[in-house]
Amino acid sequence: MTESPLARWERYNGAVLGVASLLYLASYAVRVLGHGLPAAVRDLCLAVTFASWAVFALDYGVRRRLSGQRWPRFVRTHWLDTVVLVLPLLRPVRIVQAYETVQAHHDGPRLALHARVITYAGVSVTLLGFAGSLALYQQERTAPGADIVTYGDAVWFTCTTLSTVGYGDLAPVTPLGRLIAVGVMACGLALLGAVTGTFSSWLLQVFAREGERPPGNSPGASDGKD
Amino acid sequence: MTESPLARWERYNGAVLGVASLLYLASYAVRVLGHGLPAAVRDLCLAVTFASWAVFALDYGVRRRLSGQRWPRFVRTHWLDTVVLVLPLLRPVRIVQAYETVQAHHDGPRLALHARVITYAGVSVTLLGFAGSLALYQQERTAPGADIVTYGDAVWFTCTTLSTVGYGDLAPVTPLGRLIAVGVMACGLALLGAVTGTFSSWLLQVFAREGERPPGNSPGASDGKD
Amino acid sequence: MTESPLARWERYNGAVLGVASLLYLASYAVRVLGHGLPAAVRDLCLAVTFASWAVFALDYGVRRRLSGQRWPRFVRTHWLDTVVLVLPLLRPVRIVQAYETVQAHHDGPRLALHARVITYAGVSVTLLGFAGSLALYQQERTAPGADIVTYGDAVWFTCTTLSTVGYGDLAPVTPLGRLIAVGVMACGLALLGAVTGTFSSWLLQVFAREGERPPGNSPGASDGKD
Amino acid sequence: MTESPLARWERYNGAVLGVASLLYLASYAVRVLGHGLPAAVRDLCLAVTFASWAVFALDYGVRRRLSGQRWPRFVRTHWLDTVVLVLPLLRPVRIVQAYETVQAHHDGPRLALHARVITYAGVSVTLLGFAGSLALYQQERTAPGADIVTYGDAVWFTCTTLSTVGYGDLAPVTPLGRLIAVGVMACGLALLGAVTGTFSSWLLQVFAREGERPPGNSPGASDGKD
Repeated sequence: MTESPLARWERYNGAVLGVASLLYLASYAVRVLGHGLPAAVRDLCLAVTFASWAVFALDYGVRRRLSGQRWPRFVRTHWLDTVVLVLPLLRPVRIVQAYETVQAHHDGPRLALHARVITYAGVSVTLLGFAGSLALYQQERTAPGADIVTYGDAVWFTCTTLSTVGYGDLAPVTPLGRLIAVGVMACGLALLGAVTGTFSSWLLQVFAREGERPPGNSPGASDGKD
Repeated sequence: MTESPLARWERYNGAVLGVASLLYLASYAVRVLGHGLPAAVRDLCLAVTFASWAVFALDYGVRRRLSGQRWPRFVRTHWLDTVVLVLPLLRPVRIVQAYETVQAHHDGPRLALHARVITYAGVSVTLLGFAGSLALYQQERTAPGADIVTYGDAVWFTCTTLSTVGYGDLAPVTPLGRLIAVGVMACGLALLGAVTGTFSSWLLQVFAREGERPPGNSPGASDGKD
Repeated sequence: MTESPLARWERYNGAVLGVASLLYLASYAVRVLGHGLPAAVRDLCLAVTFASWAVFALDYGVRRRLSGQRWPRFVRTHWLDTVVLVLPLLRPVRIVQAYETVQAHHDGPRLALHARVITYAGVSVTLLGFAGSLALYQQERTAPGADIVTYGDAVWFTCTTLSTVGYGDLAPVTPLGRLIAVGVMACGLALLGAVTGTFSSWLLQVFAREGERPPGNSPGASDGKD
Repeated sequence: MTESPLARWERYNGAVLGVASLLYLASYAVRVLGHGLPAAVRDLCLAVTFASWAVFALDYGVRRRLSGQRWPRFVRTHWLDTVVLVLPLLRPVRIVQAYETVQAHHDGPRLALHARVITYAGVSVTLLGFAGSLALYQQERTAPGADIVTYGDAVWFTCTTLSTVGYGDLAPVTPLGRLIAVGVMACGLALLGAVTGTFSSWLLQVFAREGERPPGNSPGASDGKD
């Protein structure tokens, strides 16, 4: 089958976007965490952050042109891309896709479906949690009466939220901090869904396989090995 | 097949009920949040609230008549309608149904099942959460020793409850406020069930499709794209 | 097929045990909640509690005899019955079974499987939660430094625990109170599993049905109606 | 089929490793909990701890040799074994496997798949929770400003975390204590996934069986009996 220009662009550009996403996240992290760094380093980080964002914007524009759609329609049909362009800290959702695109053209050994889902869910949630903890830290640490004053606090809060445990020994106090926390909660719900759904479908599969074999010879339980 | 009078009523009246539900919620919200509004505006809101409720009551009565059932039996067999009539803030559950009824007669493109379930769950939970936060705010803000004193607090509390995270930095202190919170918890459990169940069944489906294709050509992971 | 004596005993005795369980729970509740009641009433409650327990013990003994097993083996193979005999507040688990036994011989209309699972899970969890809140209240209300001092507090705490939200504005402080809370948590996990699992299997079923029908005619979403 | 030397080693060594794991956990527990024990007893415990660890290291080395792989590759392909070697408190994950290996060669009655999954999940989570509560207690009890000062507190905290309830009346304050708590949260998520997934697949199975039988004769609900 012939490949559309859009599909070819997405294929070639996947790795570039992935690198830009990691650069964005890394430079943002250095700027947020490095209070004591020289101003020159922090300015460099800001430059890298903006350069990465420019790559995202360029990619968005090229894809709009290649899709042949008008702006209003493209913004609507690619709403997830639009959201991710406006809030680049949500980029990690796309890193997985970039990896998938690259991987699909290597023809290397692919993980089994269940392992893949868990791996992708784990990587996405880890990256989103990292981005969320940075944003929370930046937002909360200078607020009056804040609980979350060190980056360690922000990481701990993010972990308790992602697992939907939520002790509440620390909690954001600013409206924006709470909004970020709600985003992290949504990731936590999705993670829970991924873990539970994967387990459930894996069990059903093992069960179906056991049903086909003669009894007394059930290797099902060993499928859980690494 | 010929359509029963009851089915025809429900079909024609679906949009009317949906609009009335939104008016009810909107006027209730304005009245609860608008402390500083002129008395005339607040009285108007109260009038809209009661008018919407009258529409609900009328619809309930007409459906009882069209169903040909006696009152006690109708109240019992339509217990969900009865609950929703008495507690109109739970109406959002029905908005989804109204949308469904209208949509079913447009023959437009329908979302895939999984997207539909997530969309419906999201819309219902958002609307119920909005109604719950309003009711909580109205109930708690004047209670002595209350944590939840601004509407922002009520929204934050509702979000932590819906995701079953529950930090507990804020908590209702009045019995009625706690009852409302328990209702919000039930919505949270249902949301969790919807997210997890959807993920699980989607995974099983992708898996079944992968099993039918030759290996090395597994586009399953790209099904998650928007 | 001929019915074993044990099966016949369980069939005839199901309703008796169900009534005894409700009496046990009711008399326990009156005794715990009724501080101000006359001593005679409280003594009567204690008598009813013990009488109910005697019924449980008698049933346990008769079933051991009818099963033809020796004591150590019976205790081991019927461990759930043994646990429930020692901790009669866990009886509600069995009320569902009693209802099932009675229902199975009425040949009345049976609920669909999904509705049945949700109904049973709801009834069991409500009864267990009620029993748990009573036990917690009795245990905690007189402890020094306790948070849970009114029965309303105990109910609120139980609800937050069953939904796995867990605000922590109130928490038990005695070791026994914490043990009871852990039991309530286990019920909460089971409830979550029931809700999620039911939703997931219902979705899969709707999906399988949709796959069999021609597109454009998908009534799946209306299966969720009461 | 002929058995590889590695498989034979794992088969014969399974029970030895299981005993060593229990000894490790037991001696660690005695050392952590027994502040008041004579120094000789505590030294003995330390010796047992180290001896158990030596058994783990030896097993790891022998398996590397039998696998015929070079060190870097073996470490990578057996990453779970490597993690468990470095953090022996995570051993309980392996106890289940040892039990499985032993059981597989006894040809005794095997539990049904669903009961097996719940049993394994329960045993693993109980042992991991025990190990986690010991580590938390050791880490937190001497920290300034710590909430978790008795072993009972550590157990209570671990239970609230495993059920993802998370009251937050107690919370770790040291970075290492929080890291341990994050590990416990991960176990909690996995437990939730196991419970929900098992319930979901059990329901689907009951449903499939009901669909095959004539109506009015549905023994599905009694499958839930112990």
